[in-house]
Amino acid sequence: MLLSGKEQVMPRYKATIAYDGTDFYGWQVQPGMRTVQLELEKAVNQMAKHPAEHIRVQGSGRTDARVHAVGQVAHFDLPFDIPADAVRKGLSTMLPYDIGIKQVEIVPETFHAQYSAHHKTYRYRLSTTEFIDPFKRNYTGHWHRRLDPALMQAAIGDYLGEHDWLSFVASGYQQKTTVRTVYRAQMWEKPADDEIWFEFSGNGFLYNQIRIMVGVLLEIGNGARPVDDIPRLFAVKDRQQACFTAPAQGLYLMSVDY
Amino acid sequence: MLLSGKEQVMPRYKATIAYDGTDFYGWQVQPGMRTVQLELEKAVNQMAKHPAEHIRVQGSGRTDARVHAVGQVAHFDLPFDIPADAVRKGLSTMLPYDIGIKQVEIVPETFHAQYSAHHKTYRYRLSTTEFIDPFKRNYTGHWHRRLDPALMQAAIGDYLGEHDWLSFVASGYQQKTTVRTVYRAQMWEKPADDEIWFEFSGNGFLYNQIRIMVGVLLEIGNGARPVDDIPRLFAVKDRQQACFTAPAQGLYLMSVDY
Repeated sequence: MLLSGKEQVMPRYKATIAYDGTDFYGWQVQPGMRTVQLELEKAVNQMAKHPAEHIRVQGSGRTDARVHAVGQVAHFDLPFDIPADAVRKGLSTMLPYDIGIKQVEIVPETFHAQYSAHHKTYRYRLSTTEFIDPFKRNYTGHWHRRLDPALMQAAIGDYLGEHDWLSFVASGYQQKTTVRTVYRAQMWEKPADDEIWFEFSGNGFLYNQIRIMVGVLLEIGNGARPVDDIPRLFAVKDRQQACFTAPAQGLYLMSVDY
Repeated sequence: MLLSGKEQVMPRYKATIAYDGTDFYGWQVQPGMRTVQLELEKAVNQMAKHPAEHIRVQGSGRTDARVHAVGQVAHFDLPFDIPADAVRKGLSTMLPYDIGIKQVEIVPETFHAQYSAHHKTYRYRLSTTEFIDPFKRNYTGHWHRRLDPALMQAAIGDYLGEHDWLSFVASGYQQKTTVRTVYRAQMWEKPADDEIWFEFSGNGFLYNQIRIMVGVLLEIGNGARPVDDIPRLFAVKDRQQACFTAPAQGLYLMSVDY
């Protein structure tokens, strides 16, 4: 039913989305670039055929080029009140195969994919073999220099809690404050796959923050940085002291919790 | 040491190779196409810098566009007698990331990657969820219609043994005989991944044979074809009776045994 005039209600939809970031220039719409948001907005507008307005798709936050998502969340408003699962099926048929719609729900209009988010969880997959597996090249970071997991395990807990992450943000960040809270910081070895996985949950992450956090851990595991260096990095608040950013293709946005 | 004149010995190297077939137009060199053989020959010739001759890389057999390999085998002759592991490292630095050299060995000059092969093993990965996982789109076939694994399990053993596979070969095959022997034919469900895996070993497979074998099994599992249809297909020797070819991206050449 098309609603119009004073009685118009635009139902709000929350979509949970997976994407293989390999062939995307990240989440955010940028002129001339293939991005996830662009593809989603094309599909939503093609489905809605709204006569006047370009419907925007609001994500929980950006992801960079080549970064993946297992559970990105976005919201959008439709001019029709159609069942959530019909929206899911409709979008699924219109989207390219490197984007998958896992779930669509109707949510109150107060829901906002970015501002309502309570915490986000990211995973970083690191491959540690000398042989660079062609099936992992787009799906893991890669490190085959010296690496002592015990050193990283001893240091990773230093990331927990509320900190000023100014030493862990790439240039180009736009946020007013660089204070964020990390609720969970874990790593585990996956010897059967020759991988190490890192997982971080927090109330928000700055531009490149997770990849720099992983980079610092790898330098600690390598012995290039002392095991107690993380508290010092928080204290110095210097973006030049943690330069190594782990490669994008190992990073996965796992979930956004509300 | 460069050997020349009468004393020239061209040592033969056997390479075990993995590749992600997604961005290749198959194994075999074809004008204007990016193929695995082309990339390997570029790397081998760049490394060898043979003054007069283009060194050829002979594979165990072709794979189609988008088909993957975990253990393809190829041989080539070099004008230098250099250690096998140095050849592996040299090629690894020159090859694109979607080809990986797993092992290089020096073999007798009587070794031939194609003619010396005793048997080959292929795996087919099938994803069975309604949701098309963007991370599997290039790495599994996909089937979300009705499928009874017990029916396929009851039928798959009919593939074992020596048969004329004329009903299972795509048009365009060039072999003199379509008689081949299958030594192993297995399937197992991977419920944690929502996948079914098929594996076949045999003394040789015709063009598209494995993908047609999987296609026939899926039609049996779907109920579209009777469970005892495989012996009938061997008997009729008619390429029109098994038309459904499972998609290329689920197929992996796992190993070649000598």
